[in-house]
Amino acid sequence: MAERPGERPAASGPARVYSRRRLLVTSAAAALSGAAAAAVGVGIADAGSPGAAAPAAPETREEDTVPFYGLHQAGVQSPAQSAAAFCAFDLHADVDAAALRRLLRLLSDDIARMSAGRAALADTAPELAAAPARLTVTVGFGPSLFDKVGLAAARPAGFADLPAFPTIDRLDPTYGGGDLLLQICADDALVVAHAQRMLFKDTRAFATARWTQRGFLPQGPAGQTGRNLMGQVDGTVNPRTDADFDRVVWSTGTGWFTGGTFLVFRRIRMELDTWDELDRSAMEATIGRRLSTGAPLTGTAEHDEPDLDAVDATGLHAIADFAHLRLARGDGPAAQLLRRPYSYDDSPGADGASDVGQLFCAYQADIGAQFVPMQQRLAAGDLLNQWITPVGSAVFAIPPGCAPGGFLAEGMFS
Amino acid sequence: MAERPGERPAASGPARVYSRRRLLVTSAAAALSGAAAAAVGVGIADAGSPGAAAPAAPETREEDTVPFYGLHQAGVQSPAQSAAAFCAFDLHADVDAAALRRLLRLLSDDIARMSAGRAALADTAPELAAAPARLTVTVGFGPSLFDKVGLAAARPAGFADLPAFPTIDRLDPTYGGGDLLLQICADDALVVAHAQRMLFKDTRAFATARWTQRGFLPQGPAGQTGRNLMGQVDGTVNPRTDADFDRVVWSTGTGWFTGGTFLVFRRIRMELDTWDELDRSAMEATIGRRLSTGAPLTGTAEHDEPDLDAVDATGLHAIADFAHLRLARGDGPAAQLLRRPYSYDDSPGADGASDVGQLFCAYQADIGAQFVPMQQRLAAGDLLNQWITPVGSAVFAIPPGCAPGGFLAEGMFS
Repeated sequence: MAERPGERPAASGPARVYSRRRLLVTSAAAALSGAAAAAVGVGIADAGSPGAAAPAAPETREEDTVPFYGLHQAGVQSPAQSAAAFCAFDLHADVDAAALRRLLRLLSDDIARMSAGRAALADTAPELAAAPARLTVTVGFGPSLFDKVGLAAARPAGFADLPAFPTIDRLDPTYGGGDLLLQICADDALVVAHAQRMLFKDTRAFATARWTQRGFLPQGPAGQTGRNLMGQVDGTVNPRTDADFDRVVWSTGTGWFTGGTFLVFRRIRMELDTWDELDRSAMEATIGRRLSTGAPLTGTAEHDEPDLDAVDATGLHAIADFAHLRLARGDGPAAQLLRRPYSYDDSPGADGASDVGQLFCAYQADIGAQFVPMQQRLAAGDLLNQWITPVGSAVFAIPPGCAPGGFLAEGMFS
Repeated sequence: MAERPGERPAASGPARVYSRRRLLVTSAAAALSGAAAAAVGVGIADAGSPGAAAPAAPETREEDTVPFYGLHQAGVQSPAQSAAAFCAFDLHADVDAAALRRLLRLLSDDIARMSAGRAALADTAPELAAAPARLTVTVGFGPSLFDKVGLAAARPAGFADLPAFPTIDRLDPTYGGGDLLLQICADDALVVAHAQRMLFKDTRAFATARWTQRGFLPQGPAGQTGRNLMGQVDGTVNPRTDADFDRVVWSTGTGWFTGGTFLVFRRIRMELDTWDELDRSAMEATIGRRLSTGAPLTGTAEHDEPDLDAVDATGLHAIADFAHLRLARGDGPAAQLLRRPYSYDDSPGADGASDVGQLFCAYQADIGAQFVPMQQRLAAGDLLNQWITPVGSAVFAIPPGCAPGGFLAEGMFS
């Protein structure tokens, strides 16, 4: 499997927008142990490690696959697929470091197989794996995991639960926390459901399901920013180039976590019935962008740079002082987070009310320096707070990727 | 909008497989009243009825739309879209025939608009309607509706709740019954969610949500039969031609219901953990088809006619006496129902267990003559019963379509 954009056949699908980065023998890769490092030496392409890296089934099309192996896990820089399941687990009390290591080997092997269009080892319906629809499965660890398995020293520096945001949060523990996360994404909900079932089989002996939340995205043309259920163009300001990702998303340094990232996962309910009572200009003032195009109120096209100093005829800021755009942006460079959100619709809820919103997913190198200050600004003043309510919250450390023959987070055990 | 396949531009999407049938001035159309019949006289294409039939928004592509107006409702003969929500409602106690008529006018108008890529009247986020992704919304009536609104005489002859199937059913009322059904299908889950929200606004003053069940299908190539979560090719034997639909699906006669159909909706849980314990040959013997291709055990290709008399080397039927294929088929012609099922995955359930299966949807001209005898044969002997459990059940009369200027079920009020 070719890895660099230039090595791929031309195609028009969203898989063309980004490409996972070539696995180079860098400081991070060099930190991989034993056989993995040897495999890295011959490149990322399936390296002849028997069983673990056989070619994809003949009917699997390359444009249907996102490579599993690499410096970083798939499912972060990968263009967002249209269907997702986020599944959190709590480890059984008897799971120690050795058991967690076995679980991660199992998961890595099955994820690698399914990502390439091959069936998981225990799959009795392998036909359901043949068209992976850009399946990615991303594994994450909650802050609670490290102490539980006796690996407190491996917890990435500063990785901890979020501070409370009492002015806005109405958190339901049903939707938050967890020792382990599986983020399963594909362009086909059947593929997500089947992969989820295979991976639940792997986890059953080690962990108990804590919550599962499903989301979706519109299937727009490649490179077009999607809309959320409020109708807003959502996700305009995001890192795009590899250099952006290195600066904003990937953890740097020399420890085992180098090349990983941190996910802030927030279930944010939208109060659409009251939102509907606004007229469009009030909606646009709340966000700071046009509903029609997603352009900032000071521009004409989605990707125009907002002019935060511009004033309107009344002398007030054209992008209001408490507009979502202004507060989310803050003073630093524009792309402070990778946002890769999904919409959800579980309505009607138990009481018959609307239950829709966003599974907000933000990936970053340092939660304390990136998400937290942004969220503090938003919690204090965002006009949008009247129509959105965080009801679930969790953070996960997303370990770096691995090389053929290796497994996710292997550096944590060495 | 052209209506016959030959009048459409060549294209490769699934919308090409079938096409809604041209609205002709037939006995059924002639039964439509007043303005509707006049509009029929000038053809189905948007007939200049102001407001109700303005052209689609410029950015809406014709291949993204399934026409709402026609002899039959959309969402039955239409090729199945990849996402669906089935929403059942109970009418408020004070809803009489006049109120129901107002609700149906409201619903018909908004469904027509959204199907064409135009926003529902109360939509504050019209951008979410511009790419309808083959949206169809199909309206149905439960047996309980007619008495409630004082229209007992309009209940189609013989339309009633299903008989009990006590050997197999484990019905949860949470998933069954209902006065009114909205079946919302599109190739984009965001479109389904948005349409659902608009239509819930319409119903709020008239009815209470009873249950909502969501499903999905693999996004396979046009014309290819999908697989269910057991891995089986599912839906091979279905009416395909207009003549098949006239014989199997559409209600005939001279009353207001002519051109309608009847939906049997069953939520069928799959016991995949025990199903997984079978080897493939046992799975194939249970169904009577190969897992790999969907071919009957006596054939080599999916659409080969099964040889129910063939015997194997031991002298037993090659397709077992209690195989699902044999019992579903019975003695009559092969295509006795239109099956248009969706998979569901709501797992893990409240108890952490797997909660996956099929929203089985069967459309037919006569439930008593078509679904019921088939289900009696299956309930008595189907080998598959060990691994599937009906947990929800409902029936709905799906009124015929309407012409521009008209509304669904208008004949019921005349």
